[in-house]
Amino acid sequence: MRATLMYGAGDVRIEDVPDSVIKQPTDALVRITASCVCGSDLWPYATRKPEDPPARMGHEFIGVVEDVGTEVTTVKKGDLVVAPFAISDGTCAFCHEGVHTSCANPQAGFWDGIPDEGGQAEAARVPLADGTLVRLPVAPDSALMPSLLTLSDVYGTGFHAAVCGGVGPQTRVAVIGDGAVGLLAVLSARQLGAEQIILMGRHQVRTDLGREFGATDVVAERGQEGVEKVRELTGGEGAHVVLEAVGLMSAYEQALGIVRAGGVISRVGVPQYEDAPIGFGSLFGPNVRLAGGPAPTRAYVESLMPDILSGAIEPGKVFDAVTDLDGVPAGYRDMADRKSLKVLVNL
Amino acid sequence: MRATLMYGAGDVRIEDVPDSVIKQPTDALVRITASCVCGSDLWPYATRKPEDPPARMGHEFIGVVEDVGTEVTTVKKGDLVVAPFAISDGTCAFCHEGVHTSCANPQAGFWDGIPDEGGQAEAARVPLADGTLVRLPVAPDSALMPSLLTLSDVYGTGFHAAVCGGVGPQTRVAVIGDGAVGLLAVLSARQLGAEQIILMGRHQVRTDLGREFGATDVVAERGQEGVEKVRELTGGEGAHVVLEAVGLMSAYEQALGIVRAGGVISRVGVPQYEDAPIGFGSLFGPNVRLAGGPAPTRAYVESLMPDILSGAIEPGKVFDAVTDLDGVPAGYRDMADRKSLKVLVNL
Repeated sequence: MRATLMYGAGDVRIEDVPDSVIKQPTDALVRITASCVCGSDLWPYATRKPEDPPARMGHEFIGVVEDVGTEVTTVKKGDLVVAPFAISDGTCAFCHEGVHTSCANPQAGFWDGIPDEGGQAEAARVPLADGTLVRLPVAPDSALMPSLLTLSDVYGTGFHAAVCGGVGPQTRVAVIGDGAVGLLAVLSARQLGAEQIILMGRHQVRTDLGREFGATDVVAERGQEGVEKVRELTGGEGAHVVLEAVGLMSAYEQALGIVRAGGVISRVGVPQYEDAPIGFGSLFGPNVRLAGGPAPTRAYVESLMPDILSGAIEPGKVFDAVTDLDGVPAGYRDMADRKSLKVLVNL
Repeated sequence: MRATLMYGAGDVRIEDVPDSVIKQPTDALVRITASCVCGSDLWPYATRKPEDPPARMGHEFIGVVEDVGTEVTTVKKGDLVVAPFAISDGTCAFCHEGVHTSCANPQAGFWDGIPDEGGQAEAARVPLADGTLVRLPVAPDSALMPSLLTLSDVYGTGFHAAVCGGVGPQTRVAVIGDGAVGLLAVLSARQLGAEQIILMGRHQVRTDLGREFGATDVVAERGQEGVEKVRELTGGEGAHVVLEAVGLMSAYEQALGIVRAGGVISRVGVPQYEDAPIGFGSLFGPNVRLAGGPAPTRAYVESLMPDILSGAIEPGKVFDAVTDLDGVPAGYRDMADRKSLKVLVNL
């Protein structure tokens, strides 16, 4: 079978690899029909060292179950399924508490923790299939496929940001980042009833989509100028909830500048820093809370799917390019160059 | 009148100062009847430089209203009142949202921001009296005085920790710190119905009081040993809510070690650090939230008072020493030396 490998920064290749096969009685083998490139894939694409061993890539996909292990009961051969970006058993204490990304099962974890598997490939072995996979009640050629694929990561991640931030009516929200997650955080904030949604971003095609998703204001300025603009738009008081969908220290600092006293900074951009200000002069003094993390998208799939199936929302609009597996390396390049927002891979 | 001044680390004096007087139409002049020394007073007591100008001290007190400005309507001469440690107008957006410590009124703030006033004194001018002061329905010689005085800071602060942590039934709580705030965080967690309350502290007199307040377990160990002990007591999973009532980096690190994935670290100890780990390897990866700050105790006074008046709880038990104004310097010393948990000052 063919799969995507990253050899180092800027070096993504499609190669023949050994076929994925069932290894555990709880596995499912999935023939992938739709996949995509994630904003988080761009971090290793920018920084991975050539001496690191080649890495299998991809953690968002939809596919058809080809085979299941002897203990799998919730999906069967022929089912169309979506795979969240974290593997979880659905039965441990953490899954019950909605933190599937911290599932206690030894087989659980992120795709990059599973040797020789990845979602940008023709097939994948999915561990803990009963807990991880969710059946989709449509055919693989459904026009809903792009939107359903966002349940795997970006939509669930944007929604997680909004949920962790406690967005509701009367909430003034600011979203930092006009990538796919930021835009779907806008959509999620609107779904949760936010009174005001300020999108901070400077790429007009993207911020236009943000407006379509529900942004009431767009702020292109960054740094102190951006802080002042958001403060101005919030009556001088700042945003109740800041959804930080970038992960850079500059985005965290931006969040500190625009969050309201007593508010929340909810992070879903993977932090590219470890230490940051949280003392009296930043978070503590104004009682600002910090929330977020890798989204347990599995927790949200069932509740987010109906609005996609009904056509009420179309999160799949974040895909502005479509390619096949051979086009994946170009897809990485285009996303890194910001020529594409998010690349859909049809297989 | 006489008041407490800090001249530098370890140098606290009682001196004659100009009488406090009404300056603004929203002020009240309060003759102080009960005051106390705060754990947070011990930070400057340890570090204040002799070249700094002498500072008036104290931010927790009860007293009798002697006079009010022309605009004050909610308290009058002769009323017994408690003063929260933050001045707030009770009318701005932040007060309405329960963050009185971030009140937008220019006269609002902490006591150390008010020149020539302080709570360890015979009297104080209280700005924004209508918003700040709360009448007490007892006489100044009531036996409830120690407990009512805790509404000013330590009980409200412990309660704020528990509220910000989202403590409720089914919550396993760990409290770091056996000072007055830590012990009252234990009491608060019990009031909010916590299933398990693990108190981390090594001073048996204090942890015994913690057990009386509701601690189900006491862990004397610190560092990695303490982490392992708490993990063991929580089925290997960690505490849903960690109430951090110390403020040192070591306490934050302890919190990171014992908090459960998807849990909350709620800080009320004033952080003696600004930067700290919050990236993938600490908060972000396990979706741990960070909450807390200086407690808007004004927000809690009315709801916490009834259980004190009825005798259902006795938070005033944190006072293990009583003195008069002349005894305040010795009170600081005894608290710094951990000979006293918290010193009550009767005037």
